[in-house]
Amino acid sequence: MDRARREEPRAVARLISLVENGSPALPRIAAALAPFGGRARVLGLTGAPGVGKSTTTNELVRALRKQDRRVGVLAVDPSSPFTGGAILGDRVRMQDHATDPGVFIRSMSSRGHLGGLAAATPQAVRVLEGAGFDDVLVETVGVGQAEVEVASLADTTLVLLAPGMGDGIQAVKAGILEIADVFVINKADRDGANQTYRDIQGMIGLGERVPGGWRPPVVRTVAARGEGLDDVLAAMEKHRDWMAGRGELVARRERRAAAEVEAIALGTLRARSFGRTSIAALATRVAAGELDPYAAADELLQHIAR
Amino acid sequence: MDRARREEPRAVARLISLVENGSPALPRIAAALAPFGGRARVLGLTGAPGVGKSTTTNELVRALRKQDRRVGVLAVDPSSPFTGGAILGDRVRMQDHATDPGVFIRSMSSRGHLGGLAAATPQAVRVLEGAGFDDVLVETVGVGQAEVEVASLADTTLVLLAPGMGDGIQAVKAGILEIADVFVINKADRDGANQTYRDIQGMIGLGERVPGGWRPPVVRTVAARGEGLDDVLAAMEKHRDWMAGRGELVARRERRAAAEVEAIALGTLRARSFGRTSIAALATRVAAGELDPYAAADELLQHIAR
Repeated sequence: MDRARREEPRAVARLISLVENGSPALPRIAAALAPFGGRARVLGLTGAPGVGKSTTTNELVRALRKQDRRVGVLAVDPSSPFTGGAILGDRVRMQDHATDPGVFIRSMSSRGHLGGLAAATPQAVRVLEGAGFDDVLVETVGVGQAEVEVASLADTTLVLLAPGMGDGIQAVKAGILEIADVFVINKADRDGANQTYRDIQGMIGLGERVPGGWRPPVVRTVAARGEGLDDVLAAMEKHRDWMAGRGELVARRERRAAAEVEAIALGTLRARSFGRTSIAALATRVAAGELDPYAAADELLQHIAR
Repeated sequence: MDRARREEPRAVARLISLVENGSPALPRIAAALAPFGGRARVLGLTGAPGVGKSTTTNELVRALRKQDRRVGVLAVDPSSPFTGGAILGDRVRMQDHATDPGVFIRSMSSRGHLGGLAAATPQAVRVLEGAGFDDVLVETVGVGQAEVEVASLADTTLVLLAPGMGDGIQAVKAGILEIADVFVINKADRDGANQTYRDIQGMIGLGERVPGGWRPPVVRTVAARGEGLDDVLAAMEKHRDWMAGRGELVARRERRAAAEVEAIALGTLRARSFGRTSIAALATRVAAGELDPYAAADELLQHIAR
């Protein structure tokens, strides 16, 4: 931990591995990290495959480095056999920053961690905060559960889109609109970018708007040419100012902490249950109709109490 | 409960409302329902907006009714302000079966239920099982967390696609491939249906295949004209036979019960925590860096024990 705080990348990498693998030392590591929580800006970045997430992350890191900010990147892989390869491939592109000591890049999976990504990722964020990074960028493949988790984790969540997603926009509507603080239309030099822009603006217009609430701005980028990234940073800062002015930043971080505590408590329930009161044994009885799930949950909690 | 078992639709509807709203009577209801668990086939149906889920559900119900099976339908609304309206609109189309006492259709949200949809939906399934339905069809909007939950809930999960989804197929790749037991290409009379078929087959071919494992069949339908539904039923039955022959049906139902027990236990943790040991109070201290999340989770569980 001390070495991680002296910004030794190998010490940071080792700590993240311990977090990822659910090391028995985790509670001790977490206790040491607690005071550093909340030091960094935590940025979430999500979007469907093919929208240019890695390129955008790469260019965002470059833009933040120009502001002399130290940047940690966590690329979250939801342990899917189908996405794992793609993410690893993408990481290769990030080698632009490989020799910059102000940048730390790491792919994460939740294999082994009892509380899953919901518990492992916030801990990894704290490792980077403890190591003195100013910004932590959490990138996820934007399909399924992971992007909801990244949203509950980040101070500001960027949702990336690209023109020509067709019905994809429809899909975005249902799931991702609610978690976006800033929309980024990447590949904005392509045909259909204006249509995508209008579609998104239309969707935002349909959403329920609390008076004084945040209306997600829509920013256009061509990340592959490094264009528009300053606008993304400006939108992020505007969102941060809005949050700070309303106590929303603290509220969001408390929600994040609550989700983390719950995920760890659930992990503990799983780990400590055994014998007749193991979750598996209780589930067998529920599936067989011998026990109802409420009685089973009660038995589980009673067992932990003893 | 007795009246629900005598197949009175209003009694069934009332029980589902109690489940949905997290009635204090839930543990008692659950205990009464426990013996009926596992009587029905539970079918999951999911897909992105616009692929024709409601029409397909409608026609599936028709096909099952021809086999003289009683069918319950739960249309799960993940409580999004953005999707709620659309689902309600779709329900209107289901009025084809409004006067058929062998069909019960109900939209569900998780508002009020402590364990969320993960706990409320299995209980609603049990209500329908207790009321003597042979098949329970759980339909979800296939974006985000809900379709993963429906997959963990169903014996057999159908994933609906439509031609011309463009990059949508890419998105499907990452999230939905893993949960599909049967792929249904609806609107198969449209341009691009063959391409979609080849894309899906290609994706399935790339997936990891355990020897003797299940290879999801790809069925084509034109639900709006009632075409192909018998093929869907046949694929479902084939999947069921495969599961039964390997003990997979029991294993899947036990996994479902385990998830249900966990969701209820988490709900109980939330409900019973208060004062200094409430999750909110613990989260405030974690967010402020006064407490680490592992210590907070321990305090939470200790409190429940007392």
